[in-house]
Amino acid sequence: MVIDLNADLGEGFGIWRLGDDLALLDIVTSANVACGFHAGDPVTIRRTCAAAVDRGVTIGAQVSYRDLAGFGRREMDLEPEELCAEVLYQLAAVDGIARAMGGRVSYVKPHGALYNRVCRDHEQAMALVDAVADYDPSLPVLTLPGSVVHEAAAASGVPTVSEAFADRAYTAAGALVSRRAPGAVIHDARTVSERAVRMAREGRVTSADGPDVPVTARSICVHGDTPGAVGLARAVRDGLLEAGVVLQAFA
Amino acid sequence: MVIDLNADLGEGFGIWRLGDDLALLDIVTSANVACGFHAGDPVTIRRTCAAAVDRGVTIGAQVSYRDLAGFGRREMDLEPEELCAEVLYQLAAVDGIARAMGGRVSYVKPHGALYNRVCRDHEQAMALVDAVADYDPSLPVLTLPGSVVHEAAAASGVPTVSEAFADRAYTAAGALVSRRAPGAVIHDARTVSERAVRMAREGRVTSADGPDVPVTARSICVHGDTPGAVGLARAVRDGLLEAGVVLQAFA
Amino acid sequence: MVIDLNADLGEGFGIWRLGDDLALLDIVTSANVACGFHAGDPVTIRRTCAAAVDRGVTIGAQVSYRDLAGFGRREMDLEPEELCAEVLYQLAAVDGIARAMGGRVSYVKPHGALYNRVCRDHEQAMALVDAVADYDPSLPVLTLPGSVVHEAAAASGVPTVSEAFADRAYTAAGALVSRRAPGAVIHDARTVSERAVRMAREGRVTSADGPDVPVTARSICVHGDTPGAVGLARAVRDGLLEAGVVLQAFA
Amino acid sequence: MVIDLNADLGEGFGIWRLGDDLALLDIVTSANVACGFHAGDPVTIRRTCAAAVDRGVTIGAQVSYRDLAGFGRREMDLEPEELCAEVLYQLAAVDGIARAMGGRVSYVKPHGALYNRVCRDHEQAMALVDAVADYDPSLPVLTLPGSVVHEAAAASGVPTVSEAFADRAYTAAGALVSRRAPGAVIHDARTVSERAVRMAREGRVTSADGPDVPVTARSICVHGDTPGAVGLARAVRDGLLEAGVVLQAFA
Repeated sequence: MVIDLNADLGEGFGIWRLGDDLALLDIVTSANVACGFHAGDPVTIRRTCAAAVDRGVTIGAQVSYRDLAGFGRREMDLEPEELCAEVLYQLAAVDGIARAMGGRVSYVKPHGALYNRVCRDHEQAMALVDAVADYDPSLPVLTLPGSVVHEAAAASGVPTVSEAFADRAYTAAGALVSRRAPGAVIHDARTVSERAVRMAREGRVTSADGPDVPVTARSICVHGDTPGAVGLARAVRDGLLEAGVVLQAFA
Repeated sequence: MVIDLNADLGEGFGIWRLGDDLALLDIVTSANVACGFHAGDPVTIRRTCAAAVDRGVTIGAQVSYRDLAGFGRREMDLEPEELCAEVLYQLAAVDGIARAMGGRVSYVKPHGALYNRVCRDHEQAMALVDAVADYDPSLPVLTLPGSVVHEAAAASGVPTVSEAFADRAYTAAGALVSRRAPGAVIHDARTVSERAVRMAREGRVTSADGPDVPVTARSICVHGDTPGAVGLARAVRDGLLEAGVVLQAFA
Repeated sequence: MVIDLNADLGEGFGIWRLGDDLALLDIVTSANVACGFHAGDPVTIRRTCAAAVDRGVTIGAQVSYRDLAGFGRREMDLEPEELCAEVLYQLAAVDGIARAMGGRVSYVKPHGALYNRVCRDHEQAMALVDAVADYDPSLPVLTLPGSVVHEAAAASGVPTVSEAFADRAYTAAGALVSRRAPGAVIHDARTVSERAVRMAREGRVTSADGPDVPVTARSICVHGDTPGAVGLARAVRDGLLEAGVVLQAFA
Repeated sequence: MVIDLNADLGEGFGIWRLGDDLALLDIVTSANVACGFHAGDPVTIRRTCAAAVDRGVTIGAQVSYRDLAGFGRREMDLEPEELCAEVLYQLAAVDGIARAMGGRVSYVKPHGALYNRVCRDHEQAMALVDAVADYDPSLPVLTLPGSVVHEAAAASGVPTVSEAFADRAYTAAGALVSRRAPGAVIHDARTVSERAVRMAREGRVTSADGPDVPVTARSICVHGDTPGAVGLARAVRDGLLEAGVVLQAFA
């Protein structure tokens, strides 16, 4: 019973901050570091990598569309060559900074609209996978189990890791309930913590429709961009530890 | 009698092009690849690195202020921590792309206003050198001989390489004549070629005031952002080869 | 028999140029001035507006997605509030500069991917129309006849103007042949010029399938981003004048 | 005894927020709205202008260097033509949005490093003034009394307004104590409020060296980018009102 906790970090830009990075670094085992395209100026990237290395937290490159104004949350129709090169650029930049701080990038997680897109769009998924394969084909891609990008990675020999969301409702088919649907996001700390424990120990969670569904995940994603979110993340961590689950990065 | 020829490459952005990269890659031995901050989108960086690797041209990271609108030609008062992190980010991004293309970044050359600034400003020079030292202290910094950044590099154990400009007039003291002064830039191909040959063979060049001045350079910088400039660069190359000078990258 | 010729202008950014603006300004009657989001830095906008005013060419605001790296050619899923505010910002910026140069913005033309999107997507079309209505509801929107954005404008009381493309093949149904299909773009100057004349005089053009189709247009779009394109644009202008068509802006 | 209170507003960008805009709008009489170059995306500009119009707060354009990553706090060596066009673009964009919301831009205040630069650099000051004169020569420029930009404006027939800082220490010569010096910024709400009252009623304030110095100001600048700052701003407002000073915008 081993699980990883991952969260987005370093998502400020210049003078602007988002979330409590240092609090999250004491909770998670993997840090998805923003690479500068949706968030993350070089000073922030450097400080975030240094703080992660200090705490023994594994570093991932949180690659994104080039969209500071939209925080990478707006899907973009990039050509595969463009997307591949943009992912490669971001991955290389953060890995280089991480190495200068004594660490390294150990996995890749797409951000926001790119995450959603590569989970269902084969062309963009392949572009992302190609970038990882060009840079270092041993780096795993972290997204949803069964997603198109996981299939694309498997076909290219790039490893994948599956994540689950303890604070999101699942359908009876095992998919995430759309954020627009009522009850899609669960806010009660105890409930979220208990769901995380069941995911880690049993590989199952109660679906929005009632019956249990299997949820295969080596990592659970927690959020930290609001004060309440940090408390929720800490509840997940504490619940897992109390249940005897070992928190350990996958990479 | 060995000299390197370096030029700025990959200085387009998105749809926009600048200079004839492929023509220049057949002339130079070292390519200063733009890193995305004054020019150089990821697709362009990738293509430029791939073309350089194909031709056996050495790749350098042409780091800059973050200033697309001003092409990195406007001095900026960055804090050392900011400048250091921005240089590190650019250097890592281009090195990672170069490695994915089968090459690597072998030196660092500051661009435009940053070049001018680090040649005289100790604080920014140290920030640049710190970034190189953090990333890979064996990478040489290419700028003017005797510049402040060369002193800063020497103090930090980072190697330096000196360059000269065959198409620029020199004062009797061995400095470049200001671009604003008449005659600062020499346009006649034969004259420029002959000056390059004297620089390479004798380490001397005729100053604007008449007498010869010593010019110590392991590399000569040529330009390629106009059709005429490519012809001039080729004349320099041909003149050097005819004079028995060996063209060879320094890194 | 009156027609307008429109072209995209001011599509450089910083040091980078695109197309021969001054040559085009002697050909067209309406200039679609880039507003800074896909191209067009403030100096370029100002110079382009001043040159248009000098030549009596009508100025339009060529509004776009915020995407310098992709030249506004990549569709983006913006929320209506975002798109509306971004269009309003661009329109106001260029109108203000045009007024400072003694002119004004007289119409709005969406650029690239935004053009394509608002011709078929009601939500983004309404966001664009809302911005125009908020700024000045008397400004016409220039796009394809029968497009969704024209319907949206009509419903909001914003005027519209239809344009045709003399160098593009039309289907028998009167739609543009996809750019990816062979023969979609016509390169022969005489053919393009003759098609423009028939569009202006008869409101008809030969379709790719053979029979004539009606083409209702108050404006014909010409391109200028290659040397050949300028020659083609001039051939269109000369052909129209020789055929007795009056070239006159619609706004 | 009439004084204006001004503050920087709308200084978020995309997802990132800075300061409590709505709280400040209930305190100040003039809002310096960020124009998109150091902060302020179009949605934020639009909402800020709408909220200012709702509350009867006067709108100013807070123009800046193009430097999102540095929040406009890093001096840049722009050519006058560049700076003039960039200021014109920003001013026009925000004025157009303000007008669409039922208001208008009534003054111009430079931001951050540009503020400091135009207070002492004649060339950049003239470029700023030229932009204002080109757009609307009746718009006043708000900066320090006796600054170079005020002289430049006077020579060009552009009006000026002087501001003072209730929370900053003044030298015996009437200049601001450098932020790097100890005691440069005053944090005690009562002291700051009392200084504001003396500035407004007597045109004098106690200098850091002891004796009173004259401070001529039609506006007092307050800050709002921290919770404490909002409290300080409110204390200044309450103190002025209790002392019988009339709070009224200058424009």
